[in-house]
Order: sequence, then structure tokens, then C-alpha cells
Amino acid sequence: MRAKLFYLGLIASFIASGALHYLHADSTLQFVVSCAAIIFVAGFLGKATESVAHYAGERLGGFLNATFGNAAELIIAIFLVRDGLFDMVKASLTGSIIGNLLLVLGLSVLAGGLKFKEQTFNVKLASHNASLMFLAIIALVIPAVFSRSFTIKETNMLSIFVAALLIIAYLLWLLFSMVTHKTELADQVVAGHAEEEHPAWSAKLSVFLLLLATVMTALVSEWLVGTVHEFSAQFGLSELFIGAFLIAIIGNAAEHSAAVFLALKNKMGAAVEIAVGSSLQIALFVAPVLVIASWMMGNPMDLVFTFYELAAITVAVLIAKSISQDGQSNWYEGVLLLVVYLILGIAFFLV
Amino acid sequence: MRAKLFYLGLIASFIASGALHYLHADSTLQFVVSCAAIIFVAGFLGKATESVAHYAGERLGGFLNATFGNAAELIIAIFLVRDGLFDMVKASLTGSIIGNLLLVLGLSVLAGGLKFKEQTFNVKLASHNASLMFLAIIALVIPAVFSRSFTIKETNMLSIFVAALLIIAYLLWLLFSMVTHKTELADQVVAGHAEEEHPAWSAKLSVFLLLLATVMTALVSEWLVGTVHEFSAQFGLSELFIGAFLIAIIGNAAEHSAAVFLALKNKMGAAVEIAVGSSLQIALFVAPVLVIASWMMGNPMDLVFTFYELAAITVAVLIAKSISQDGQSNWYEGVLLLVVYLILGIAFFLV
Amino acid sequence: MRAKLFYLGLIASFIASGALHYLHADSTLQFVVSCAAIIFVAGFLGKATESVAHYAGERLGGFLNATFGNAAELIIAIFLVRDGLFDMVKASLTGSIIGNLLLVLGLSVLAGGLKFKEQTFNVKLASHNASLMFLAIIALVIPAVFSRSFTIKETNMLSIFVAALLIIAYLLWLLFSMVTHKTELADQVVAGHAEEEHPAWSAKLSVFLLLLATVMTALVSEWLVGTVHEFSAQFGLSELFIGAFLIAIIGNAAEHSAAVFLALKNKMGAAVEIAVGSSLQIALFVAPVLVIASWMMGNPMDLVFTFYELAAITVAVLIAKSISQDGQSNWYEGVLLLVVYLILGIAFFLV
Repeated sequence: MRAKLFYLGLIASFIASGALHYLHADSTLQFVVSCAAIIFVAGFLGKATESVAHYAGERLGGFLNATFGNAAELIIAIFLVRDGLFDMVKASLTGSIIGNLLLVLGLSVLAGGLKFKEQTFNVKLASHNASLMFLAIIALVIPAVFSRSFTIKETNMLSIFVAALLIIAYLLWLLFSMVTHKTELADQVVAGHAEEEHPAWSAKLSVFLLLLATVMTALVSEWLVGTVHEFSAQFGLSELFIGAFLIAIIGNAAEHSAAVFLALKNKMGAAVEIAVGSSLQIALFVAPVLVIASWMMGNPMDLVFTFYELAAITVAVLIAKSISQDGQSNWYEGVLLLVVYLILGIAFFLV
Repeated sequence: MRAKLFYLGLIASFIASGALHYLHADSTLQFVVSCAAIIFVAGFLGKATESVAHYAGERLGGFLNATFGNAAELIIAIFLVRDGLFDMVKASLTGSIIGNLLLVLGLSVLAGGLKFKEQTFNVKLASHNASLMFLAIIALVIPAVFSRSFTIKETNMLSIFVAALLIIAYLLWLLFSMVTHKTELADQVVAGHAEEEHPAWSAKLSVFLLLLATVMTALVSEWLVGTVHEFSAQFGLSELFIGAFLIAIIGNAAEHSAAVFLALKNKMGAAVEIAVGSSLQIALFVAPVLVIASWMMGNPMDLVFTFYELAAITVAVLIAKSISQDGQSNWYEGVLLLVVYLILGIAFFLV
Repeated sequence: MRAKLFYLGLIASFIASGALHYLHADSTLQFVVSCAAIIFVAGFLGKATESVAHYAGERLGGFLNATFGNAAELIIAIFLVRDGLFDMVKASLTGSIIGNLLLVLGLSVLAGGLKFKEQTFNVKLASHNASLMFLAIIALVIPAVFSRSFTIKETNMLSIFVAALLIIAYLLWLLFSMVTHKTELADQVVAGHAEEEHPAWSAKLSVFLLLLATVMTALVSEWLVGTVHEFSAQFGLSELFIGAFLIAIIGNAAEHSAAVFLALKNKMGAAVEIAVGSSLQIALFVAPVLVIASWMMGNPMDLVFTFYELAAITVAVLIAKSISQDGQSNWYEGVLLLVVYLILGIAFFLV
């Protein structure tokens, strides 16, 4: 009965949100309906992820979730790059990285920590994630440092070279973590895991529903993002703040709720995978692909982020690494992540 | 007999030091007598801390020691803030942080390490301390980075906001470490712990004597600090060096000797708590309280430290984190901390 | 038979390379013959190191290897310092540090990881190495930061003071790691270790051959370095790139192959000791000795490295620390180190 009502709400809010978007309805109305829709599709995505995780393991489920979530962002970003809106793209990439590492991870850790005294996840994976996050920082800091004395052409050459290396490193990471060292990085089986409740979907249906939920999320996110600009203009917010905070928060709403949902079920490994894995994917795959795609389109975007963006990303990585490296989490670590997010939020707001 | 002589020396040197101070005696005489007095009150503080630690556990004892030690500094700093001496306040906060993380911790680790091959302390606490130290760095770096393009008003707004967040984070940390996760962060019971010698004071008397010792230490520290200026003027030292090194070393003399004292008794957990806990308290509580207090007094002090101060604090946190994160210490780690302190000392001396 | 051919090739290529060098033969011919010779002497050095390691333990063997390898570099650098070529010296020190931490360590970890799923080394040693690497960064960053507002005389005073502290810290490290805490930092005995094949040399002969191999390596390295300049001039490469990459790669060829050789024999502890130990020795001993030697020669070199060099060293230390701190390695960690090396390589190439 409760499930039926849920799916009714999901379909109704999704259709209403789409209709209002294509009919160019009043933006306030669009905003409210899209917010309702995003809550439903995020819930749907959570269920589908959980079902896939049941068959594929927590990590693969988390990876699929992160990938489909970022696929939507990648598509939106390619359109922005085509139009030459590089600053907006970089701000939203920055926002996604810090949003995932601080807000999504922070909320998950806090929510899970309020329910369970201590939650654990694979410590080797946490250690590898930390090394990859350092690679991400290095790949952003080095072009920023060296481009000071470079010509535009040299900066673009360095950016393309670094982008190609990052894509190779990311693909080899998938080979490593999903094939050669899959077992070592897996979460330990929790006793009684098999008896947990989850939707009674077959493996194939679960994958199909995960795809469907992702596409729906991407669409609703886009409709919602479309209404944000008008709102922010009314309140006099800067492009940097909108890109790095508003769009990132709303665009990642699905990841947020899916991760929190999993943390509350004590599946911290999957929650971390969504948050950290998503950040890594943006830094090591989405950003480099945009650099290479823009170069192929004849209007190359470089990898040089502003000093503020670099400071925010570095700070987010350092605190997330410090907190996650022991493979354990508790409520206070969630508080720390959220405090850092708030500090960055007010700083960007005031810029 | 030996104990009686100690208390006789304590009372005599304390009264003499106070008398010379209020009689405005010759500053050289004041300096020598205050130095003698600080050795006695520090020894008294060490005994009282040990006795409280006996009843309350090593960590709570260390926390009380750090708190009362910093309470004195906070009071002195508020007077300086009232007079608008912001640079001097920030220099002495910087000096307290690096003095505790490098000098106090370094001396404790070295002294303990020369007596015991390896000393251990709670590794989870070390990990949390490291995350809190990162929060402290972030809270100081972000205002410094962003204030470049800010107006004074925006810088003050950011400072007040960050200060409020730090105070909340610090209070939640007390809730976490003293209430919800007290057991997880406690030092493991050392076999035979109960039979150790310690002053035969009751729990209530121990707390009272700890308070008394702290007040005496605060007074003697202040008298000693008062004589330092005349000395340093004679030797042509800069305000930055005086604030960050001389005042910090003498003002924290009690913490120094209490921590070394505990390390020599193989109570490394309490020694680390004094050194690291005191630094954290200054960065996450004393500094923010000064920002908010100055704002209420109508002459707001911001959280923007100089580039030199930030470099010194960052460097101190990184080496202290690297050394303490495994929950073990040995003499060479003490050497490393002291070497970094000396490098910073000569750099500040030459500025 | 195979061994005989090896020693025949070693002697022939060594003599030919030396003869061509002193006869000032065609530089292309010199380059090719020296390359062949370096492969043979590196192989010889590897055998001698392995034999010494058999008697002395993996770590002492690694330390001896690192020391003799750097002795050659120290001698070459002293000649450069005498001629006032400070920038070239600093570039080659930078190159040696990042070459060892990224290229040598990366190739060893990758090669070993392709053969063994997971290799281990002493985790306490890795932790201490990390702290020493931080000391190295601090010792380079602090003079660079503070020298901005210093006179040349003050910068030299700070450099000499820091150099003296680093030499003391390094000598105490040898005392700590080779004497007082030798057992704690040793690699665990691998089952069946004693039965491994190794050259049937006595302990004394092994040490003599290690010395001989080191001297031969130093000579061939120098001859090879001599030919590099003409090559690079033809291809229009910058002094910075030559110093930091070409000279460092070729000059450390022996360390490279010895470390890879040991990794393939699953002696990861010795491989890490060569790579990390060699970097530490350069930062904490070779560089300070050059500062003090130049001061005694009346033409003082300071410890102020360029911003690019500091960024490269910091980045190399951070990723190497992140990867080595768990005392385990796998092929993907080798990939990460090499990717960072390539990113730095292209950045320095474009400067």
C-alpha cells in the first residue's frame, strides 16, 4: 500500500515537473514541483541502488550510482563547454567535488553516526581513495602553478596532456578496483546481511530500474537547475556561488539522499563510495573529458582553476582524507565535514 | 621531609615574586625570582594534575590542565584585545599553538623516549586530534585566502561566522569526547596503574588544588611576562619574536613541565592531551572567543593571520600529525619536533 | 657461462666508455656506449647490493646502496657549487628527490606489483620516513617563505642554521634507525629467505664489490652526464629540465635498476629504502652539506629553492607518503607515482 502511494507520487510529480518545464510555466511553481519530484526520484534511485547492491555488492552499486549521477552532469557540462562558459563549468565541477566530499559524506556520516555508535568501511579502499584524491589535487595545482609563466598555447598543451594521463589513471583504477584487486577492496560481509529487506526485484530488473531512475533524476535535476537562475538573480547571488553551491547541491540531490539512505542502513561502504567515488570521478574523469572534448570542438578549455577553487578543493580533500583514512566513522566526523562545508559556503557567498 | 621543603619553596618564591612585582622592583631581580617561582608552581600543577588524573582518568586530567592553563591566557588576551593590540594577540596565539605542538610535545616525547623505548597512547584520539587540527588550519587559511579580495566589513563578517562555527565544533567535540564516545577515546588501563604513587589527596581536594595551582601559575606567568619586555628591549628583539616565542614559552612553562613530568611517568596519553589539547583549545576556542568578544566590544578583531604565522602553524600541525597519528612515540620523534621548533624559532628571530 | 658473459660485457663497456670520454670522441658514440655501460654497472651494483643485503639485512644493504649512489652525486655537486652554478645544483637536487620518490619508487612498485599481488614492508619505517620527508619539506619551505623579506645575509644565516640542524637530525636518524631502534624498523623475515639464490661471495668481498660497483657507476654516470648537454642543446631543452629530469634519471640509473631488481625478488623493504632513503639523504644530508661547504668556500649557496621546485618536491612527498604509509604496495600505486612523475615532467619541459 505504502509502496503503491510512493510510485504514484513518483510518476505524478515527474510528469508534472516535466510538463511545467516544457510549458515555460511560472518559475516559482516549477521550482516547488521540481523539488517534490527530486525527492521522489531520489528515493527511487536509492531503492534501485540498494537492489543492485544486493546482487552486485555494495561497492559496485555505489560505483554505478556515482557513474550515472555524474553522466547527467557530464552531459550538461558539455553543453556549457560548447557555449564557452568555462568559468561556470569549473565552478560547478568544484562545487560537485566539495559538495560530495563535505556535504554528502558529512550528512551520511552524521546520520549514520546518530543511529550507530561506530560504522566501518574497507580501510584499504579508503587509503587508495585518499591517494587518488591527492592525484586529483596535484593534477589541478600543477597546471595552476606553472601556467603563471606559460603562454595560452603551453597551458592548453599541459592541460591536454594532464587530462589524458588522468583518464588513463582512472581507467586503470577501474581495472584495479573492479578486476585485479576486487576482493581486497570489498566490504566485509556483515552477518545476517542476506536476510535484510530490499525490493523483490530480479538482478536484471534492478539494473534496468537503476538506469531508469538515473535518467529520471538527470531530467528532473536539469529542470530544477533551469529554475535556479531566476531565483538567484532575484536574491543577487554571484555566478561562483550559484555554480559551486546551489547547482551542486540540487544537481547532486539524488546522491545526497541515496548516500544518507545507505548510511542509515549501516551500509557505510556504499555511502562512502557514492560520495568519495563521485568526487574522484568528477576530478579524474569528467573534468579531463571536458578538456579533451573542448579541444576537439576547437575551443580548448584549460585545467587552470581559480585560487579560491583550488583552496576549497584542497581543504575538502585534506579533511575528508583525515576523517576517512581509518575506515571508521562516527557522528562527530560528520559534524567536522559539515562545519568545513559551511565555512567554504560563507566564504564563496561573500566573494 | 622532601615534600615539606617543596611546599615551603613554593610559598616563599610565590610571595616573593608577587611582592617584587607590585613593588616595581628591579626587573632583573623580578625576572630571576619569577623564574624560580614558575618552577615551583609548575611542579605543584603537575602534582595536582596527576592526582586529578588518578581519579578522573588521564585524559580528563589533561583536559582540565589544558583548560586552566589556557584560561589564564584567555584573560590576558582579552585585555590586549580591549587595547586593540591585535598583532600581539595573534602572535601570542600562534606562539602558543606551535609552542605546545612542537616544544611541549617534543620535550615530552624526547624525555619519555629516553626513559622508555616506546610509549603508546590512544590511536583513535590521535586520529581525531589530527582532524581537529586540520579544521583549525582550514579555519585560519580560508579567511586569509579570501580576505584578499574582501572589504574590511566582509572580512569581519567571515571571521565572526567562522568563529561561531569553531566554538560550536569545539563544544560538540567536548560532548563527543567526554560523553558519547568517552570509552573509545580512553587510554588503555596499564597493568599496576592503581598501585602507582601519587599525592594522597581526596578527589575533591585534588580538584581544589588543581584550581589553586592554575591560578598561582597564571599569576606568576603574568608577573614573569611583565619583566620580559624590558629584557627583550635591551637585546633588540622584535615584537613578533617576543609574542610568538618568549611569551609563549614562559606563559606555557607550567604545561611544559606538567607534560614532561607525565611522559616520564609513562603517562603519554595525558602528556599528549596537554600539548595537543591545549593547541586545539587555543585555535578552536580561545581565538574564536576573542573574535566574538572584540566584536561585542565594538572593535572587531578578524581571524586573518599573517602569512608567516600561517606557515608556522601549518608546518607545526603537519609534523605533529605525522608523528602522533600511529599512537606511538619514541625519542627520535621528539628530536624531529624540536628541530622544526628551532627552524621556526630562528626564522621568526630573523624577521 | 651466463655470468662470465655478463662480467665480460661489464669490463668491455666500462673501458670503452672511459676511453671514448677521455679521447673526446664523437658525442653520439659516447652516449650510446655509456648507456650500454650504465646497464652493466647497474646490474653489477644490484648483485653486490643483494649480496651485502644477504649478510647485513635488507635495510642496511639499501642504506649502503643509497649512500654510495649519493656520494657520487655529492662530489659532482661540490664541483658545481665551487663554480657558482647554484641553480643547476638545486635543479639536480630537486630532480634526484622527485626522481627517487616517483620514478624509482614507481617503477619498483609497478614491476613488483605485476609479479606479486601485494608486497609488504615495515610500516613503522614507512611512518618514520614520512615524518622525515615532512621535515625535508619544512626545511625547504620555511627559508623560501621567510627569505622574501630577508636581506641576502639573513637568508644565508637562516640557510646555514637550518642546514646544521638537518645534518644533526640526519645523524641522529642513523643512530635511531641503525642502533637504538634497529629491531623495530627491520623487515620481517620472509620464510625461506635464507635459501634464496645470491652471488656466492663472502661478506667482505661483497662489501668490496659494492664499493667497486659504486665507484664504477659514479664514473660511468659522469661520463654519460657529460654527453647529455650536447644532446639537449641540439633538441633545445632548458637547463631546468636537463638538471631536474635528464641528469637525475641517468645519474640515478643504478638506483633505478637496483630497486626494480629487488622489488622483482619481493624484497620491497630494500627497494623502498633505496628510493625513499636516497631522497631523504639528498634533502637532509647532501643539500645541507653543500650549503655549509659553499659557505666555507666563501661563496655561500642558500637553501631557497624556486617555487616550481618546491611545488614539485611537495607534490612528490605527499603522493609518496600517501602511498607508502600503509606498508603495502600493489601495481596501481606504482601507476599513480609514475603518472605524477609524468605530469611534473611535462610541466618542467614546458617551463
